[in-house]
Amino acid sequence: MTPQLDASDRLRHLLTLEELPRERLVALLDRAQAFADGAAGRPLAGTAVCTLFFEPSTRTRLSFQRAAQRLGADVLNFDASTSSTSKGETALDTMKNIEAMGVRGFVVRHSEDGGVAALAARAQPGTALLNAGDGRSAHPTQGLLDMLTLRQAKGVDFSRLKVLIVGDIRHSRVARSDLQALRTLGVGEIRICGPRSLLPDDETLDGCRIEDDFDAALEGVDAVMMLRLQRERMAEGLVSSLEDYHRDYGLTAQRLRLAAPDAVVMHPGPMNRGVEIDDDVADGPQSLVLRQVANGVAVRMAALEALLG
Amino acid sequence: MTPQLDASDRLRHLLTLEELPRERLVALLDRAQAFADGAAGRPLAGTAVCTLFFEPSTRTRLSFQRAAQRLGADVLNFDASTSSTSKGETALDTMKNIEAMGVRGFVVRHSEDGGVAALAARAQPGTALLNAGDGRSAHPTQGLLDMLTLRQAKGVDFSRLKVLIVGDIRHSRVARSDLQALRTLGVGEIRICGPRSLLPDDETLDGCRIEDDFDAALEGVDAVMMLRLQRERMAEGLVSSLEDYHRDYGLTAQRLRLAAPDAVVMHPGPMNRGVEIDDDVADGPQSLVLRQVANGVAVRMAALEALLG
Amino acid sequence: MTPQLDASDRLRHLLTLEELPRERLVALLDRAQAFADGAAGRPLAGTAVCTLFFEPSTRTRLSFQRAAQRLGADVLNFDASTSSTSKGETALDTMKNIEAMGVRGFVVRHSEDGGVAALAARAQPGTALLNAGDGRSAHPTQGLLDMLTLRQAKGVDFSRLKVLIVGDIRHSRVARSDLQALRTLGVGEIRICGPRSLLPDDETLDGCRIEDDFDAALEGVDAVMMLRLQRERMAEGLVSSLEDYHRDYGLTAQRLRLAAPDAVVMHPGPMNRGVEIDDDVADGPQSLVLRQVANGVAVRMAALEALLG
Repeated sequence: MTPQLDASDRLRHLLTLEELPRERLVALLDRAQAFADGAAGRPLAGTAVCTLFFEPSTRTRLSFQRAAQRLGADVLNFDASTSSTSKGETALDTMKNIEAMGVRGFVVRHSEDGGVAALAARAQPGTALLNAGDGRSAHPTQGLLDMLTLRQAKGVDFSRLKVLIVGDIRHSRVARSDLQALRTLGVGEIRICGPRSLLPDDETLDGCRIEDDFDAALEGVDAVMMLRLQRERMAEGLVSSLEDYHRDYGLTAQRLRLAAPDAVVMHPGPMNRGVEIDDDVADGPQSLVLRQVANGVAVRMAALEALLG
Repeated sequence: MTPQLDASDRLRHLLTLEELPRERLVALLDRAQAFADGAAGRPLAGTAVCTLFFEPSTRTRLSFQRAAQRLGADVLNFDASTSSTSKGETALDTMKNIEAMGVRGFVVRHSEDGGVAALAARAQPGTALLNAGDGRSAHPTQGLLDMLTLRQAKGVDFSRLKVLIVGDIRHSRVARSDLQALRTLGVGEIRICGPRSLLPDDETLDGCRIEDDFDAALEGVDAVMMLRLQRERMAEGLVSSLEDYHRDYGLTAQRLRLAAPDAVVMHPGPMNRGVEIDDDVADGPQSLVLRQVANGVAVRMAALEALLG
Repeated sequence: MTPQLDASDRLRHLLTLEELPRERLVALLDRAQAFADGAAGRPLAGTAVCTLFFEPSTRTRLSFQRAAQRLGADVLNFDASTSSTSKGETALDTMKNIEAMGVRGFVVRHSEDGGVAALAARAQPGTALLNAGDGRSAHPTQGLLDMLTLRQAKGVDFSRLKVLIVGDIRHSRVARSDLQALRTLGVGEIRICGPRSLLPDDETLDGCRIEDDFDAALEGVDAVMMLRLQRERMAEGLVSSLEDYHRDYGLTAQRLRLAAPDAVVMHPGPMNRGVEIDDDVADGPQSLVLRQVANGVAVRMAALEALLG
């Protein structure tokens, strides 16, 4: 149970897509599409938004910052991974302090599962938190931007779509948010492919079709969502080598021909070119990678506006 | 003698509260109260303010940044503790360079006593410096926000108030600015408590009542201002251990009952919970810690407006 | 051949002054002069400009940021030297990603010759790159601000001017951009002085008068452009010691008397005081060092407006 809806069922925070009702998710996508189409205005003029990152991520921070700027908000950046929180202050004290400065919106990345929800539970009534990624749990705006990108490419009826997610699902908050959103939107089929050592052994993959063989998994799919392989998986012994990983789970142009002819390729970035994805796929005509990035700003505008507007 | 007043007695810089006349200090508090009550406007639109920190402090920087934003100013941040001043440029060259870029306001933190005043002495006529903390000397906006917080809680007549300051006064610029402001506002009694090794042996405490015993010191006071214990005091041999410090000078709920029933608790942050202050005091009904933070933005708006408006 | 002009001869990027036609260079200087004289407006309101520095330089970044702010642009800062590009993403992927977020202007510093041009070649049609320094090649806005400073001091007719450039020309992008601009503006004479080990052995100095003796070089010149001596030249064995360098190539007040009586002194900063320049020269009446910094903002406003306005 997340505290993201208030007593009157209004969206208070955006922490996860897990319990977000379909109509609310679709409304966010619709508004994001309007922003992607150029909708303008400064509904957040005079409102302060703070990026509060306990784990570094320049790209996600810039995307939220651009979204806040386009809405007219004042932006403050707090890189908690390098700042004086090293003085021993807790994440909660940091958040409460910046909240006391009059900041109404927080974009928070946290290394622990539930780290953002724990902060949200202690926020003042007028304060909204947006989860920019917590542990392995959730990255809801990434899930939303992936759905927007898929919808632009394939239309609103997801029931006919076969979507394949490939890679380190076990450690991926992106995958979890994507899975939740795909289910909410009633996607036809979800296939999963990756080394068994990188697949979760809980209910995360319930209802998904798990394929060990990447070639078989690709057969006829409409979208391939590749995940980033973190290099620490090698050190942890979960993956033998980058070469082996590329051989078994790297998306090459040749492999992509096994998917539907109009299949699209997605990746949350940053890409390990030559590991999970080849250059000619990443930069090829079926790649939506930069479209995802563009949609990221639109989706974050929709979320900020919904929570703070 | 500080150069913060010009020939016609106008406030040019805000470097210290030491020689700030009472009516000027009260005027800043009155204006800050108006900002705390929601006064708005963009008197600094088009004006550039630069935070220039030769010592890191994310929270103070954010507070000034938010204050400048609310006044409509453009903000530039220069973290001199990590930047290319390491190329060997002096603090003065750095300031003069940014001043030449058309920046009119500087919020400066410096590790040396008088470091900000030295820069102010070399500023152009139209340039104003705000001391965001220099060495052990002064942190004038902290002093102002503490006075504003005390005034909100206890009213404008300070002559009836007994205020206790606890901890490492020797190394504290916060304590020095508080002491100066309390005297200017004619506070009834100032009590001081802390290990003798952490009390100054100069005229800083003239007129204060020094108590070795924390319980005796708390007796009937209207406000307790706790100071942060820097952990390096242990390494320096000035404090034996965190446990001993907490036993002798930690503010517990039990101890707080020795103060007046409506006594308020203040702390400049970040707090060492469990060392100088316990959780139930820090987060309890008598704590004004977050109110101090909120007032910090208001006070800094008043100061920026007074100097640059 | 740089791609900075488009098919219809419009300025698309600002990468180098090498092929910039005289009328275009003069137009930029004229517009910069208007900004230096206080011309205002917000032609870039709603436009996003990103500083993308693969090599750190706080001062250049602040100058561009101030220029963008004065034009009303939204600014994003990406310090690629400390960010998660360390995750292995290429400079190109970083730029393409931020471009996809809707950023239209990039201010790029890169450690490699041609590093900025390589990125510009891959930019979308609506995207403009400004070179904020690449390798040893070019620093065009520094060249422009030096020309503006010289023009303010000496008038528009450069044909009567003798200009002396002193120091490590071999490794200096500033010197290269200055040389190109001086030639374009038809300067009367360019003299060069510096240790042979720090002079380029290619066509960079074609047409320049090279003097080994600093005193002889100074004889009657109208402007002395000093360069910064990077301390790594000692480690590389290119310069024996700071003392020797100062003795042979340090600009002292005594030496400056060899130049024309109204000669001006320039330096791109940050200065090594006591090495290539003495305090009394740096801060003396003939020094234009801070005027250069002020002109830097004006020139960058002109460039940003020309590319994005």
